[in-house]
Amino acid sequence: MSLLADLLSTLFDRRYVFMGKQDERPLSELCTALMSSQGDISGAAIAHQILDGYATSDLAGKRVFFEFLNSEMDIDPSELERVVAAYKSEKSEENYRELVIAAEPKRQELARRLNQVPGATHQLVHMRKDLLGLLKEQPDLARTDLDLLHLFNSWFNRGFLVLRPISWESPAQILEKIIAYEAVHAIDSWDDLRRRLQPEDRRCFAFFHPSLPDEPLIFVEVALTKGIPASIQGVLGKERSIVPVEDVDTAVFYSISNCQGGLAGVSFGNSLIKQVVQDLSRELEQLNTFVTLSPLPTFCTWATKEEIDLPESDEALEELAASYLLEAKRKDNIPFDPVARFHLYNGALVHDVHANADTSENGRKQSAGVMVNYLYDLKKISQNHEVFANQKEIVASKRVQALAKAGSGQVSSPPKTAPS
Amino acid sequence: MSLLADLLSTLFDRRYVFMGKQDERPLSELCTALMSSQGDISGAAIAHQILDGYATSDLAGKRVFFEFLNSEMDIDPSELERVVAAYKSEKSEENYRELVIAAEPKRQELARRLNQVPGATHQLVHMRKDLLGLLKEQPDLARTDLDLLHLFNSWFNRGFLVLRPISWESPAQILEKIIAYEAVHAIDSWDDLRRRLQPEDRRCFAFFHPSLPDEPLIFVEVALTKGIPASIQGVLGKERSIVPVEDVDTAVFYSISNCQGGLAGVSFGNSLIKQVVQDLSRELEQLNTFVTLSPLPTFCTWATKEEIDLPESDEALEELAASYLLEAKRKDNIPFDPVARFHLYNGALVHDVHANADTSENGRKQSAGVMVNYLYDLKKISQNHEVFANQKEIVASKRVQALAKAGSGQVSSPPKTAPS
Amino acid sequence: MSLLADLLSTLFDRRYVFMGKQDERPLSELCTALMSSQGDISGAAIAHQILDGYATSDLAGKRVFFEFLNSEMDIDPSELERVVAAYKSEKSEENYRELVIAAEPKRQELARRLNQVPGATHQLVHMRKDLLGLLKEQPDLARTDLDLLHLFNSWFNRGFLVLRPISWESPAQILEKIIAYEAVHAIDSWDDLRRRLQPEDRRCFAFFHPSLPDEPLIFVEVALTKGIPASIQGVLGKERSIVPVEDVDTAVFYSISNCQGGLAGVSFGNSLIKQVVQDLSRELEQLNTFVTLSPLPTFCTWATKEEIDLPESDEALEELAASYLLEAKRKDNIPFDPVARFHLYNGALVHDVHANADTSENGRKQSAGVMVNYLYDLKKISQNHEVFANQKEIVASKRVQALAKAGSGQVSSPPKTAPS
Amino acid sequence: MSLLADLLSTLFDRRYVFMGKQDERPLSELCTALMSSQGDISGAAIAHQILDGYATSDLAGKRVFFEFLNSEMDIDPSELERVVAAYKSEKSEENYRELVIAAEPKRQELARRLNQVPGATHQLVHMRKDLLGLLKEQPDLARTDLDLLHLFNSWFNRGFLVLRPISWESPAQILEKIIAYEAVHAIDSWDDLRRRLQPEDRRCFAFFHPSLPDEPLIFVEVALTKGIPASIQGVLGKERSIVPVEDVDTAVFYSISNCQGGLAGVSFGNSLIKQVVQDLSRELEQLNTFVTLSPLPTFCTWATKEEIDLPESDEALEELAASYLLEAKRKDNIPFDPVARFHLYNGALVHDVHANADTSENGRKQSAGVMVNYLYDLKKISQNHEVFANQKEIVASKRVQALAKAGSGQVSSPPKTAPS
Repeated sequence: MSLLADLLSTLFDRRYVFMGKQDERPLSELCTALMSSQGDISGAAIAHQILDGYATSDLAGKRVFFEFLNSEMDIDPSELERVVAAYKSEKSEENYRELVIAAEPKRQELARRLNQVPGATHQLVHMRKDLLGLLKEQPDLARTDLDLLHLFNSWFNRGFLVLRPISWESPAQILEKIIAYEAVHAIDSWDDLRRRLQPEDRRCFAFFHPSLPDEPLIFVEVALTKGIPASIQGVLGKERSIVPVEDVDTAVFYSISNCQGGLAGVSFGNSLIKQVVQDLSRELEQLNTFVTLSPLPTFCTWATKEEIDLPESDEALEELAASYLLEAKRKDNIPFDPVARFHLYNGALVHDVHANADTSENGRKQSAGVMVNYLYDLKKISQNHEVFANQKEIVASKRVQALAKAGSGQVSSPPKTAPS
Repeated sequence: MSLLADLLSTLFDRRYVFMGKQDERPLSELCTALMSSQGDISGAAIAHQILDGYATSDLAGKRVFFEFLNSEMDIDPSELERVVAAYKSEKSEENYRELVIAAEPKRQELARRLNQVPGATHQLVHMRKDLLGLLKEQPDLARTDLDLLHLFNSWFNRGFLVLRPISWESPAQILEKIIAYEAVHAIDSWDDLRRRLQPEDRRCFAFFHPSLPDEPLIFVEVALTKGIPASIQGVLGKERSIVPVEDVDTAVFYSISNCQGGLAGVSFGNSLIKQVVQDLSRELEQLNTFVTLSPLPTFCTWATKEEIDLPESDEALEELAASYLLEAKRKDNIPFDPVARFHLYNGALVHDVHANADTSENGRKQSAGVMVNYLYDLKKISQNHEVFANQKEIVASKRVQALAKAGSGQVSSPPKTAPS
Repeated sequence: MSLLADLLSTLFDRRYVFMGKQDERPLSELCTALMSSQGDISGAAIAHQILDGYATSDLAGKRVFFEFLNSEMDIDPSELERVVAAYKSEKSEENYRELVIAAEPKRQELARRLNQVPGATHQLVHMRKDLLGLLKEQPDLARTDLDLLHLFNSWFNRGFLVLRPISWESPAQILEKIIAYEAVHAIDSWDDLRRRLQPEDRRCFAFFHPSLPDEPLIFVEVALTKGIPASIQGVLGKERSIVPVEDVDTAVFYSISNCQGGLAGVSFGNSLIKQVVQDLSRELEQLNTFVTLSPLPTFCTWATKEEIDLPESDEALEELAASYLLEAKRKDNIPFDPVARFHLYNGALVHDVHANADTSENGRKQSAGVMVNYLYDLKKISQNHEVFANQKEIVASKRVQALAKAGSGQVSSPPKTAPS
Repeated sequence: MSLLADLLSTLFDRRYVFMGKQDERPLSELCTALMSSQGDISGAAIAHQILDGYATSDLAGKRVFFEFLNSEMDIDPSELERVVAAYKSEKSEENYRELVIAAEPKRQELARRLNQVPGATHQLVHMRKDLLGLLKEQPDLARTDLDLLHLFNSWFNRGFLVLRPISWESPAQILEKIIAYEAVHAIDSWDDLRRRLQPEDRRCFAFFHPSLPDEPLIFVEVALTKGIPASIQGVLGKERSIVPVEDVDTAVFYSISNCQGGLAGVSFGNSLIKQVVQDLSRELEQLNTFVTLSPLPTFCTWATKEEIDLPESDEALEELAASYLLEAKRKDNIPFDPVARFHLYNGALVHDVHANADTSENGRKQSAGVMVNYLYDLKKISQNHEVFANQKEIVASKRVQALAKAGSGQVSSPPKTAPS
């Protein structure tokens, strides 16, 4: 069994470790050395030095490093112009080779060379997280960011991701990250976590990448229920009754959290939901409904901007929320609500809205206590996605349409929806 | 434990499976559809159709497909010229984004989209193997090949590879591939394989990629010995005595085989040797010598070209071989012998040559029975590599230098070494 | 993940290893020392010495060891008489404790103490294999054998066994044991093995014990078919077509082999078949028939004893075979055929007999080429078993009953079936 | 990899599950049916019914069940007398077989038959826990308890146990049991647990049995330190500095906890310590001292009984504690202190005593704040054990001997040590 044991231990030993003694040269010089090194002979040692040096740099040092990448490791447009012209005149292999080299910024190759160090992938993801932080002040670093994003989109390609259930039998080391990364309905203790993982009507799934084996990339929490729930407190309440798994008919995605700031812009959510729907369908034939229970994170912000007073009656509130979901748009004519955008783009439809569905402080503040069920109907996902992506048309249930129609009346003037 | 069990089963279920019913559209049309699909909504299904369609195409169909990639999914030089000019005049984020898009051939993004299908990575590697076969007749397809190689260099980055020991406890399914892929000293039966894996003085290691978990990428066979062996038959003989592991002092790399034709040009060998040296050093402190026992695959070819008669005496043969190794060069002034090039570039030195070291038919025919020990001295690897890579200087032991000096006399005229 | 990795490596490192330097005392003296040692302080070392000493003994030495166990580590009847009397007069805890001690032969405790050494379980199983060999000449050693059997029945209790599929992905080290242990239809090469494991219509399952993780205890080979096969050559033929798994309706158990001579008398076969039927039913809902394709290993022996000439026509041969199965009995009135006894006791019924079903040399010689299908009908297993176990009644299909009736006529006089 | 995945999933699916519909017959009747069932045909179903029936019984029902086992499934002394006499007169196999059967209480075979149900082992361990609770009121049930203990000693033989490290990467499901079972220094939160597992100078090991894969049987917590610590608060303090693992020289066993009440009397502790000492020695060559930091759980009780006032000065307290450890004895002349008995029997010596070493409430109350270091010196363990086990002699360091000598003076009259 040593083969498998070794695979495991290899995967799980991939944590990056510091080298010890530090090369004193500045990072820029080390980068130049790494780029000129032949293959991985001395390259790995230099790469290690760069990663160590970066990790121990202060913010100013990191900024200098990124500025170096941005200006000195950029595409050279003059050179590129030259080789494009050559290629245009003759599409030879040699011309193409030169074109391809000139067309790729050096920092991409640099990142690939850094990545040969065990555990480096996670370090590079951290690096981009730092870079995203710096972008606000130094927007010109966006070019470097685009390149890292491009690389990560290739490395974190769906084909390389592994879906793993997260359960009460998962390593504590991973579970503590679930607690830390939960972004929608905070997990306030290990007992709370256990209530979300251990009962037979609860599931959790995460995407992992083999090079970051103890770091979830994104995870979704699922409640198996009988019927579609109308409030998050009903789903998460301490005193709720556990539904025997043979009685469930609905899978409710009540929380989806991205975990790695450095992977912002690499899209995992859609694949995750699709894969989980597929896996749950196979495991539990009795499931016939896949639905979310989602917040409306910008509902109150919108109402304030639109100078609309939130109605006090539940029904009127649901009407307003439905109208907001179907009619409040950005300048580019897609929904104002970011969660709506995500699920509609994935091919879900707006199935229902519920007042008094999230009575937490945050739920009141952002969503006025309203929550939405987006429905994933496997047979209609492609079609829903197409009409949304192409015609920007929002598919909704009859009930939601009716609510929205009634709700439109509440909005006195044409909404002045702000651009996003 | 379900998390781990799931990781395992996920990894090992990554074999690509056919979909069943086939879309009738030509591959080119499907590719266009895949490129215009938004995200992975309907993309995965189209990608699957393309992979299936490709796999069931005949050679003519595959050629049409590659021609399509080569011409229709190429970089558009006019467009690229336009955006380079814009970027040159203003290094804005927007201009850079346009530049990056125009600078990447569409077939790269296509390959990434194909790769979202489980098991697709292996299919794409197969695809390139086909392409390499077509290149001889259609050299202009080299542009597409360059792009696939570029992608594979990114995906099969050292940081994503996993080193795994191969032993008699490994799955038969993997062992049969070791038998099939052994390229140096053929394994003629399962009994022969067992003799190379099971004794305590034998080891084998392979690199794997998490997305091709049951496909070795490259493997090395190692004999642990007392002293440096002077013949392969001594190492592999059926009747040899097994050396108790506490008595060994030398690790002999006697066979290195690349397994995936479709990954030609992605360099694994150097990392493999370095990693194995490191792992063996840690496991067995008594090891103090790391050495190869290697063929001279082009020695006889060279002698014929040079019109040199192979001497009959062992000593003269060793002299000629040493001279061949140190002095026979290609036009670019690096060694004529490909195995020498590989190990010298890795930082090894030429330690010894042995006549009568490979008495097999193939050994006689290619190497006149001569074999070489290249020595990996951890402390000198970087230095050896540098002088070889920069000054094209070959480091050799005193004995080999002396042999070569004596051997030079055998070569009457300046060698007319052919270009490689 | 270290917990699991450790469990694995612990389990798979359980091979017994020799200690090195040997204690010179005779085994009997070491055994006495082990029995007088307190707990496992020095016990483990002595136990190790005994196991080493036994393993390196010749046959004479082993005999002396078993004679020692048999006579010196026996129950002491006088002591037992004394404490039974005491217990009879007063059922106190103290009297019971003394009774329990006196009622257990010392060799049982000795075996338990030997077993504390890692890997010892397998050594003890080997020990009993040796003992069984000696029994023929020294039948009085049967007492020691009874004790080992008693212990093994406790240790190899069904609750401690693990059913594992054997596939082409299993470790070569286990697969070579499948080749070696196959007792019914010999596996003549690794290619032959692959044909029995790799196609989608082939399965193999084995019982393992956690303390002998790389030793199958018993295994069954299964063919998934469409309809019940009438010949083994049809099942195993090199040129046969593979049946797509979605088309199969029948699971055929065509070979069951016990692997450990030292576990003779510990019954695994019945549990194995039941478990495999259950697991296959769950995996493949399309299966509706579970049947064997079995030899009649003593058919020809019986015919010779009974002075019956084997008929030449297929039909007459099937009639005779059916009559043999249903009517040829041992003195204790259970079937003469050992394979029939096994399956009938398990609750199977005699479903069909086929002439020309095994044309191999062995098949001709033992079974006159005839094979039987025993049918495992899950709903009737308990009932069939009960009538067989209690009334010694054999359940058979109508066809077999009719054949047997016709076959009876062939047997001129009442059969003189020999005792087994 | 399916073989291994299956082993894993098999092991980890071994939780006992209820059957559903219950047989209405009383447990005694079901037991009789199980004993008369032939093999495991219908046996498994009946066994399942018994386990279910037991689990759902109230205390009265359980008592009836145990009384049935105790009286009706006992050894029959008359029958045993008969067969012993026969065996005494002729040591034949047949007589021995009858003797062995009569000499074993039926309840042993019953327990083995119950154990064929997956997960039953854990249920049987629970059963004995219940039985131990009933023993106080019904001491005659001790006979049944002796038989269960006998069986568990065989099943939980050292050779079947697996040592596994417990770490922050272990499944939460196992970690919560560590929290629950810690019997010496309570773990008050998950954060507290993390502090005992995650730092590089902390270790934890547990014994597991393959049939109870998620139930630790016993575990030990280890601190790696530089020098021998003199107080538990120093070891466990939140603010302590983590010692880099390359600086440690001492392994401190500061807590050992048995987990399964139903396995009381099956001794694991000695093997556990020996194995952990061995494993740690191999992993960390720099370790040269293996020592405990142990409470004196009956020190204050003893002082009260002896009417000794605890001295206020640290030094006098250490003298009294040393005198208590070396001189306070039970009637059978072994130490009064249970923890001392355990470690001395294992071959440790009394190395040091420390006042003010446990300032917790419990530490003050039981041990007057004193703690002991018992030293495991691998070279002297056997010898120490022998003199303790045979001559009841306690080995102690010179310092402790001197302290004890001084301390003896504090005890005015010969101690009236109570029997245990």
